[in-house]
Amino acid sequence: MTENKSNLKAFDAVVKELCDQKTYNFLNSRSSQAISMPSIDSLNEIMLDLKKVLFPGFFGHSEINNKTIEYHIGANLDNIIRLLSEQIKRGFCFECVDNTKKCFDCDIKAKEIVSKFISKLPHIKYMLSTDVVAAYKGDPAAKSYSETIFCYPSIIALTYYRIAHELLLLDVPLIPRIIAEMMHSLTGIDIHPGATIGENFFIDHGTGAVIGETTIIGKNVRLYQGVTLGAKSFPLDENGKPIKGIARHPIVEDDVIIYSNSTILGRITIGKGSVIGGNKWITRDVPPDSKI
Amino acid sequence: MTENKSNLKAFDAVVKELCDQKTYNFLNSRSSQAISMPSIDSLNEIMLDLKKVLFPGFFGHSEINNKTIEYHIGANLDNIIRLLSEQIKRGFCFECVDNTKKCFDCDIKAKEIVSKFISKLPHIKYMLSTDVVAAYKGDPAAKSYSETIFCYPSIIALTYYRIAHELLLLDVPLIPRIIAEMMHSLTGIDIHPGATIGENFFIDHGTGAVIGETTIIGKNVRLYQGVTLGAKSFPLDENGKPIKGIARHPIVEDDVIIYSNSTILGRITIGKGSVIGGNKWITRDVPPDSKI
Amino acid sequence: MTENKSNLKAFDAVVKELCDQKTYNFLNSRSSQAISMPSIDSLNEIMLDLKKVLFPGFFGHSEINNKTIEYHIGANLDNIIRLLSEQIKRGFCFECVDNTKKCFDCDIKAKEIVSKFISKLPHIKYMLSTDVVAAYKGDPAAKSYSETIFCYPSIIALTYYRIAHELLLLDVPLIPRIIAEMMHSLTGIDIHPGATIGENFFIDHGTGAVIGETTIIGKNVRLYQGVTLGAKSFPLDENGKPIKGIARHPIVEDDVIIYSNSTILGRITIGKGSVIGGNKWITRDVPPDSKI
Amino acid sequence: MTENKSNLKAFDAVVKELCDQKTYNFLNSRSSQAISMPSIDSLNEIMLDLKKVLFPGFFGHSEINNKTIEYHIGANLDNIIRLLSEQIKRGFCFECVDNTKKCFDCDIKAKEIVSKFISKLPHIKYMLSTDVVAAYKGDPAAKSYSETIFCYPSIIALTYYRIAHELLLLDVPLIPRIIAEMMHSLTGIDIHPGATIGENFFIDHGTGAVIGETTIIGKNVRLYQGVTLGAKSFPLDENGKPIKGIARHPIVEDDVIIYSNSTILGRITIGKGSVIGGNKWITRDVPPDSKI
Amino acid sequence: MTENKSNLKAFDAVVKELCDQKTYNFLNSRSSQAISMPSIDSLNEIMLDLKKVLFPGFFGHSEINNKTIEYHIGANLDNIIRLLSEQIKRGFCFECVDNTKKCFDCDIKAKEIVSKFISKLPHIKYMLSTDVVAAYKGDPAAKSYSETIFCYPSIIALTYYRIAHELLLLDVPLIPRIIAEMMHSLTGIDIHPGATIGENFFIDHGTGAVIGETTIIGKNVRLYQGVTLGAKSFPLDENGKPIKGIARHPIVEDDVIIYSNSTILGRITIGKGSVIGGNKWITRDVPPDSKI
Amino acid sequence: MTENKSNLKAFDAVVKELCDQKTYNFLNSRSSQAISMPSIDSLNEIMLDLKKVLFPGFFGHSEINNKTIEYHIGANLDNIIRLLSEQIKRGFCFECVDNTKKCFDCDIKAKEIVSKFISKLPHIKYMLSTDVVAAYKGDPAAKSYSETIFCYPSIIALTYYRIAHELLLLDVPLIPRIIAEMMHSLTGIDIHPGATIGENFFIDHGTGAVIGETTIIGKNVRLYQGVTLGAKSFPLDENGKPIKGIARHPIVEDDVIIYSNSTILGRITIGKGSVIGGNKWITRDVPPDSKI
Repeated sequence: MTENKSNLKAFDAVVKELCDQKTYNFLNSRSSQAISMPSIDSLNEIMLDLKKVLFPGFFGHSEINNKTIEYHIGANLDNIIRLLSEQIKRGFCFECVDNTKKCFDCDIKAKEIVSKFISKLPHIKYMLSTDVVAAYKGDPAAKSYSETIFCYPSIIALTYYRIAHELLLLDVPLIPRIIAEMMHSLTGIDIHPGATIGENFFIDHGTGAVIGETTIIGKNVRLYQGVTLGAKSFPLDENGKPIKGIARHPIVEDDVIIYSNSTILGRITIGKGSVIGGNKWITRDVPPDSKI
Repeated sequence: MTENKSNLKAFDAVVKELCDQKTYNFLNSRSSQAISMPSIDSLNEIMLDLKKVLFPGFFGHSEINNKTIEYHIGANLDNIIRLLSEQIKRGFCFECVDNTKKCFDCDIKAKEIVSKFISKLPHIKYMLSTDVVAAYKGDPAAKSYSETIFCYPSIIALTYYRIAHELLLLDVPLIPRIIAEMMHSLTGIDIHPGATIGENFFIDHGTGAVIGETTIIGKNVRLYQGVTLGAKSFPLDENGKPIKGIARHPIVEDDVIIYSNSTILGRITIGKGSVIGGNKWITRDVPPDSKI
Repeated sequence: MTENKSNLKAFDAVVKELCDQKTYNFLNSRSSQAISMPSIDSLNEIMLDLKKVLFPGFFGHSEINNKTIEYHIGANLDNIIRLLSEQIKRGFCFECVDNTKKCFDCDIKAKEIVSKFISKLPHIKYMLSTDVVAAYKGDPAAKSYSETIFCYPSIIALTYYRIAHELLLLDVPLIPRIIAEMMHSLTGIDIHPGATIGENFFIDHGTGAVIGETTIIGKNVRLYQGVTLGAKSFPLDENGKPIKGIARHPIVEDDVIIYSNSTILGRITIGKGSVIGGNKWITRDVPPDSKI
Repeated sequence: MTENKSNLKAFDAVVKELCDQKTYNFLNSRSSQAISMPSIDSLNEIMLDLKKVLFPGFFGHSEINNKTIEYHIGANLDNIIRLLSEQIKRGFCFECVDNTKKCFDCDIKAKEIVSKFISKLPHIKYMLSTDVVAAYKGDPAAKSYSETIFCYPSIIALTYYRIAHELLLLDVPLIPRIIAEMMHSLTGIDIHPGATIGENFFIDHGTGAVIGETTIIGKNVRLYQGVTLGAKSFPLDENGKPIKGIARHPIVEDDVIIYSNSTILGRITIGKGSVIGGNKWITRDVPPDSKI
Repeated sequence: MTENKSNLKAFDAVVKELCDQKTYNFLNSRSSQAISMPSIDSLNEIMLDLKKVLFPGFFGHSEINNKTIEYHIGANLDNIIRLLSEQIKRGFCFECVDNTKKCFDCDIKAKEIVSKFISKLPHIKYMLSTDVVAAYKGDPAAKSYSETIFCYPSIIALTYYRIAHELLLLDVPLIPRIIAEMMHSLTGIDIHPGATIGENFFIDHGTGAVIGETTIIGKNVRLYQGVTLGAKSFPLDENGKPIKGIARHPIVEDDVIIYSNSTILGRITIGKGSVIGGNKWITRDVPPDSKI
Repeated sequence: MTENKSNLKAFDAVVKELCDQKTYNFLNSRSSQAISMPSIDSLNEIMLDLKKVLFPGFFGHSEINNKTIEYHIGANLDNIIRLLSEQIKRGFCFECVDNTKKCFDCDIKAKEIVSKFISKLPHIKYMLSTDVVAAYKGDPAAKSYSETIFCYPSIIALTYYRIAHELLLLDVPLIPRIIAEMMHSLTGIDIHPGATIGENFFIDHGTGAVIGETTIIGKNVRLYQGVTLGAKSFPLDENGKPIKGIARHPIVEDDVIIYSNSTILGRITIGKGSVIGGNKWITRDVPPDSKI
């Protein structure tokens, strides 16, 4: 039919336009070389395996017991190593300008990084166990330590953050940011993997909390929903692009509490033991033990 | 290969460290006794079945009709009974200190509770039908009652809340909190199942709203995104742990509207018919019919 | 057993009560006629296919390359046409008062709309490519254009918004709102599909941002988390129902920046080049190039 | 790269050749009109639902009980009606030469047929219950009636056959044959849905048994593996094509036993009560009560 | 509509008829007591886990290696124990006449049996390794030992048989028969789990082979497709039911070869080293080293 | 508990025994080097994609039409190329004795082979179209050409065979045999991929048919269920192992019909136009136009 033919022509035209490299070249540059992109599905599987390893019995087979726990954790770790090596390699490829020759190197580098990451897991587990204590102590509504593992967005968010942070320290590109955005989507809490966060950390409710890339947080800090630890502004280079990598977020010292919806901006210091009330807007240093 | 052997040793060492009970004993205590933990997957299935029962045609088979609706609802209820009994039993086990002998009792208790819960479903459906009206009336952008069921986070959140609340009233441990966190992750709205909320309730947009454990909300109340009904502070016991179970969140009487990002803290009363503007910080009683 | 019989009676009674049309008639009205409701699962599949078409290589087969990209995009478009036609038809049925005779018309109308929508995809792709540039330029933490496609809630949200907006312009009922709520649940960003948004748009972090139905946003605008572009109040008709469709949200002109948690309410204009600080509450026009 | 370009050309050439209608026109004729083909996946779902209805508790939820069985069976029947109507309609379309105008008729006809089919289910269930008895009595290795439902290919095959046969009696095209081939693939037993089989039928082991289109089998018949009830030869029409629909397979009267790997060919009669030994080749009538 | 009402009545009538216990009482007896039936899905999962344990690397993660194999096998065994205990318990319930009081005993008994079964796995693995050698040596088309594990129905069938046989020796009801029918459906080979089969066994092609309940097969035996080792006839008791449990199938001694489609019936002995040609029908003892 | 400890020891002992390389070394040899094994799941996906390409509209999206068929076939072919390259590479690794260095070569070789295989697909499609005609003409029960594609095990078997055969001609190891066993499990027909089969081939019913590795079949040949084209015996080498690769199966010339359960053994020739009756056992040449 004539109408069908004209429909078909229009269809073909849209396909051609969507495939045209000229217009959107910068977006398509990667795909022109058939590099495998990181897979969100695989990263979700890795995170589930990591949760099984860090909180055995809570995730995965809920009937796990002392007799067989080593077998399960060993098998899960082996899965993690294989899957994460592949994703980290893809992270390197993603950043690679000249991806025609060094892929074999990326493969080896990825495996070395995963080995180092695995050796950090007991440390990550320790840090998270302190966060569990902090959640229990920080919320009168919490009934037990275990409940916080199941129900608290703070624990979910810190599990993702502490994993992403260790990967970032090992110079893994892209993957830590993807993991952080998974956390953001699940919990409404947005912690950049570049931030440094001490033990016994707790964010109650959490929705809308933002912790920027160069933030440094001490021990025993407690935040509430909607708290922003952000940048005040950022300098541009001669091309009008933001200069990357400058320390531009707050330092929050030990034992600080910041109530809901307060905004702390810039590389300032909130002194040890201070309490910042809700809805505050703070862009200057706060001395230790202040109540604001 | 020597390198492989040393890798293997390191791997085994990490496994052993992650399984070591001494360091993180309090976390692993449950799993040492092979008690089945509540299953998030099963609870998701239960919630989907409950949505099919409460809003037939909107969830599940979309072609449901008057002829056969009773069969479908009966079959779904039977699934719900079986699945929810198991999860509630696991909730009891989770809290049980001495779980060697009373499991049979927990099984019976769980079944009795589910029977009572099922008999509450018509009431839950009625309450949600008033919330649908409230959403339609409260948002000029709403085109029909039905649209609010499909598209409004308020209706999703209240479906989870009203179910979790009834389970809490029946003394079900842990499960109501898990259901509430599902709602929180889906909608960004955080309503503790312990809160009491009257009919015709609506939260527009909703992201960041927090309603605490001991909050009491009357009829025809409307909130906006980012509103917190929270606790001002909480007393600690002699061990420095927060005392659990004290009434510490606001009472919001009938016909109140609270605009976006306002924070109401402590066991105060917002009087009937009051309107609280946006970005307010309120820690004292507000008399009826106030405009703030 | 007697006990079982009484249990069975109670069960049957609950089923009957839940199926009773009298009480909740307005909710069940649709399902009484066995019209197929829109399917969230199908809409999720459609959105995934659209993402494959708009960002080839990033979603779907990550190994796509120049040789075969046309085949993949053509096959995906064909899937989209088939699935989306069905969902749009269901959208029409959902709104239809007299659904006994005109279904065939709805079928044809749905197919025509999908044809038009497909022809808009290159435009949508172009707009999103400008948003990618805006995200990269607006955040010092961004390492590359491509990273923003993978990790930035702003890009996810705008992908859903720009698709939903085009469907709304084509008078598709209900479906644009469902797509918008998917975005809201994923990102915490709530953009009504009725809003008009120019190119180079960026929302950093995003959680809690709200952009209302009649908002108009120019080019090169940047928002932060928690910003509300909302309605101040809305007039009721003689029945106490809100009057639908009145312009009641702000106009934000080109080159404006609005920092976190600020609230702009009502049909006011934020003049070109203005910068609104954080936590502001604005209900009056702001002249161009203001700093607030 | 030149090499890539030539690869691409070869790829395009294969695609074009595979799409060329001229060469394989008769195969592609259907698809040129975008008629939906029957779906094997959907038919598998229908068969599973039918098994749940015919043997409640054995298939589907294994915990079904007297209290709620009606709800489950009603809900399953409703699913069956909806899914099977669609597949039967597609069966009609498959056979339709002029498929431009009568689709609406096919839709109505399919629904009427499904109504009639549903009313036959109690009869099918009765017939299968006699087959269960026959299996138990016919095999010393059978431990209980119920075991035969779970473990005997004879019961699986007869479930598929008796359903397919009723559909064929209702003049459903194509679908009965597809169902029969599912049986064949699962059990190695090949019963044409056109065959007529009385109650109390049993095939032990079954692999390789073949029962042709016009076979008639009485009551209490028992076959063993590898038995063929086939056609001796078939007349061709003037074009050298086989003439369809002639009675060309055996009549097997009541109480006959045929041992393994025997072949009975042509429209002959095996008389009541006869026993045919193994490995026999029979092409003439056998009088009643013969032992061969 | 009147028509709809009459349709509805017919529908209700069919449901009631299908649920009527009187007519098909013997079939429904089990389900009236809400005993969980064995789950085919779970048994499939168990069989896959067993294949991973018996042929590591061939099934499950194909990248398994010496470093981590113990963890994977331990984790799989733990899964097998948990899942198989449940299915064996259901097997006991299935046979249980008085299932109101002894379920706890069945639970314990099932766990004890699984412990014993697990300790037999190395023996099963050894037997299967001899079958692999037999397959390689028995078929000139076989290219390597490993190929037979991937491609030979003989190895698949013997994996199912040797597992089912050990379970039968441990007095597990029903489950071994279900496992044997899985094998039958997959391979067309029907070996009753009660048969006794020595090491180095091979069935080439296999389709249609039948090995009866009381068959005894020595070492190094090779069969071809369509071979039946069956019963000649079986005595009935005074009620006309077959007497169960009598030795009625052949004894096949070491080093025997039986070519395709031959049938050996009754408790006869095929002497050591004999070769039986194809299409033979044998019902008497065959002395050692015969060629028939 | 003591009992638990002893259970645990037994468990550990079984794990160790199952992992012990010494006993079953030949079986584990592959897995010790962590080579990826071919994946049955991936091969199933490849076969489904190939069926979509060879019979568009019958498999995959049933609504495919002339407008978009090229896009779908191109996209499917691209998937096939990627997936099949990987599986063929694994086939090479499976056979590789020294797998430490040549994997890169295997990768390139696999890709070259897939390119050649793709160019054979139009030929495979042509051959299958003649088989469809043969099935329609060979069975009076067949109602249309299309029906044979949906319902005839002969067409399913030949689809798998003709694909496996082309891969074997391209020297692909292992994979053709796995594909052939998929066919065998689905249909009960066992055709070795090494056999040569001309156009217009048909096997009616098919269960139990066996066609050996070196068989040669001409045009217009028709077989029935249970027909074996096998080897009479095979010579052993000095180690008692069968000598591989000798022509040992029959040559069946054009226009031959062989009825059910006949067995033709050895490198003999069945002359053009012969008809072999059922249940025959033939080990000598048959001159052309014989009736046996």
